[in-house]
Amino acid sequence: MEEVYKKSVELHEEMQGKIEMVNKIAVDSKEKLSLVYSPGVAQPCLEIEKNPERAYDLTIKGNTIAVVTNGTAVLGLGDIGPLASLPVMEGKAMLFKKFAGINAVPICIDSKNTRHIIETIRRISPAFGGINLEDIAAPESFEIEEKLQDIGIPVFHDDQHGTAIVTLAALINACKVTNKKLTELKVVINGAGAAGIAIAKLLRCFHIDSPLCQSVKTLIVCDSQGAIHRFRNDLNKAKTELLKYSNFNDVEGDIHEVIKGADVFIGVSKGNILTKEDIQHMAENPIIFAMANPTPEIMPKDAYEAGAAIVGTGRSDFPNQINNVLAFPGIFKGALKARASTISTEMKLAAAYAIANSLENPTAEMVIPSALDSSLAQVVADAVEKAAHSEKELERQIAEAEAQFDEDQ
Amino acid sequence: MEEVYKKSVELHEEMQGKIEMVNKIAVDSKEKLSLVYSPGVAQPCLEIEKNPERAYDLTIKGNTIAVVTNGTAVLGLGDIGPLASLPVMEGKAMLFKKFAGINAVPICIDSKNTRHIIETIRRISPAFGGINLEDIAAPESFEIEEKLQDIGIPVFHDDQHGTAIVTLAALINACKVTNKKLTELKVVINGAGAAGIAIAKLLRCFHIDSPLCQSVKTLIVCDSQGAIHRFRNDLNKAKTELLKYSNFNDVEGDIHEVIKGADVFIGVSKGNILTKEDIQHMAENPIIFAMANPTPEIMPKDAYEAGAAIVGTGRSDFPNQINNVLAFPGIFKGALKARASTISTEMKLAAAYAIANSLENPTAEMVIPSALDSSLAQVVADAVEKAAHSEKELERQIAEAEAQFDEDQ
Repeated sequence: MEEVYKKSVELHEEMQGKIEMVNKIAVDSKEKLSLVYSPGVAQPCLEIEKNPERAYDLTIKGNTIAVVTNGTAVLGLGDIGPLASLPVMEGKAMLFKKFAGINAVPICIDSKNTRHIIETIRRISPAFGGINLEDIAAPESFEIEEKLQDIGIPVFHDDQHGTAIVTLAALINACKVTNKKLTELKVVINGAGAAGIAIAKLLRCFHIDSPLCQSVKTLIVCDSQGAIHRFRNDLNKAKTELLKYSNFNDVEGDIHEVIKGADVFIGVSKGNILTKEDIQHMAENPIIFAMANPTPEIMPKDAYEAGAAIVGTGRSDFPNQINNVLAFPGIFKGALKARASTISTEMKLAAAYAIANSLENPTAEMVIPSALDSSLAQVVADAVEKAAHSEKELERQIAEAEAQFDEDQ
Repeated sequence: MEEVYKKSVELHEEMQGKIEMVNKIAVDSKEKLSLVYSPGVAQPCLEIEKNPERAYDLTIKGNTIAVVTNGTAVLGLGDIGPLASLPVMEGKAMLFKKFAGINAVPICIDSKNTRHIIETIRRISPAFGGINLEDIAAPESFEIEEKLQDIGIPVFHDDQHGTAIVTLAALINACKVTNKKLTELKVVINGAGAAGIAIAKLLRCFHIDSPLCQSVKTLIVCDSQGAIHRFRNDLNKAKTELLKYSNFNDVEGDIHEVIKGADVFIGVSKGNILTKEDIQHMAENPIIFAMANPTPEIMPKDAYEAGAAIVGTGRSDFPNQINNVLAFPGIFKGALKARASTISTEMKLAAAYAIANSLENPTAEMVIPSALDSSLAQVVADAVEKAAHSEKELERQIAEAEAQFDEDQ
């Protein structure tokens, strides 16, 4: 067994749980007990009963999220079930704590039924300020996230949007370095799973009325059968929806065809599928984000040799690691602070620009900050909180205008 | 507003959550990250997938429980809903941590539908080593607990069994002090809710083949309509079931009638329903556990003046506080240690005797240890763990004998 795996099991055996729930004050006297528990606790309860918003002041809700999985799409492991995925969920909870100070509770749901998962999350939502969906197989994860947008707290599928946000951040800086314009790019995404679809949507969010929103000009998404276009009859619902965002000219062909002339390749598929020739056929100064794990779509060395201007991967042992941890802690921290009920496209864009702009002078070797940069989460949180407040204010103004209109009728 | 309520709100505002999730080790280097998260974490996952029992070695499961409520029967507050009950659940979690070192996660379920609550708990059970049901209204709570006994981890309704165990412990010592025999007692319970029913069952567990099991001789349970007997036609399912445990002679009458000649009064009903005359009509050296909160069924002073030998209440400002906190931390600690799948009557009896026997020389003023005694939980845990192991061993022997029998046929 590889050393890292052996050591990891040893560490897990020693810890018997990498996280723990602790008391924030000692309960060491009858008086303290009477304040944190019976009889004093009755009063905070009554205040929340009267005004549910008070839960954010008086309980853990405002700084606590659930990390929810059913264990059907874990890392490189696939469908290992809810219990076996618990070590990953604990690890994720550690990252939430370390980078954002958020309490994250692993919830491993024993079901593969989409409706049951939705019901379960809905029912356990009161004590949480947000829900991070994790490692749930697509396309079920899309429906789960979509159907839960009305529960009053943010529900965020990190495998989709975390990846999309960090990819956009890297792309913003890659454009700065290569002197390309985001709005003029031809982008090819390889992989039409959760991450690929979310990246496509965020890169083509032209329907959003925001100064941050700069859609790329041309986008083509490929799956294992090649370019996704409207004449294919093997597309599932999610891939069909992609046609609203991509390939308006119905380009056909496999990735090696489609990549010709592209400015950007974004790989969220599998290792070793690109060749040096593919890179050579791209536009000048091509940008390569080869994020398949552990083996990238093309190794950085090969990509550079073939003329790539910038190469990013998912790995920590190469420069430009495109890692979700740059996004999710700050996103939830900002959303919780704003008491947001959803994480909107505005908030995602704000996060992406905050990550990108945190580097004053991006270079080809550093288009994205280090995954262990512990100051970034607060910067992202501030931007996300601000975006959430702007939206709330806008909603308030619209409601006010509508009320005025109704009155005038 | 009373001072304790004002102070409690202030404390809750200051804390914004009385508990928090923390990391047991720092994630401060790429190497550590590779062990607690990707890629190293894959190995513990795979080991659990292969052998689910490994979750107790490698994750938080073995020391983590869910404190589950729907907020329908909170303290003296009644049905305040799942969110408003969160301060109580946090308080309960603090007691689990303080007394037993257990991680307790508040889960507030937004449903009053028994089937939905059962489903939800079942689905979120993988990451937990036990479920503590809390402040869920009867009779729904009975069905919820009963239907969940097969989920592979202990499901324990503290309002029922916690109270029953501590009451039995107090009664064991009260018998020592008054020179009465448990098996010869006439006991009257006033109150046929969750606590009353559980106490009745534990005091009459004659069907259990255990050296610890000493059923009281005569037991009568009263509700607001008086003694529960088989000629009443207003009994719900739970009260009807009580006829298996109590009032075999179908005694009729209200509490003032039924209490005549009784050795023990156990009140889990409401304040000020007993008179001095009632106490005077009891047997010699009567034992009074008047546990209604905040006002006992009879004040200790009045009970003593009328001739009571021993008086216990639920309050911390009188001697003999009969408080669940003496039981639940140790019970879960022992059950988790033994990796028990249920909390059996044997384990409950073991807990009651451990609590009782922790006092070397019980007196009329101290038939039960102090609720703040922090050493007791380990004593209870050891007894519960031992009982769980004995039962597992017994089950193993029975299975072996049956296999042998089948083979011999």
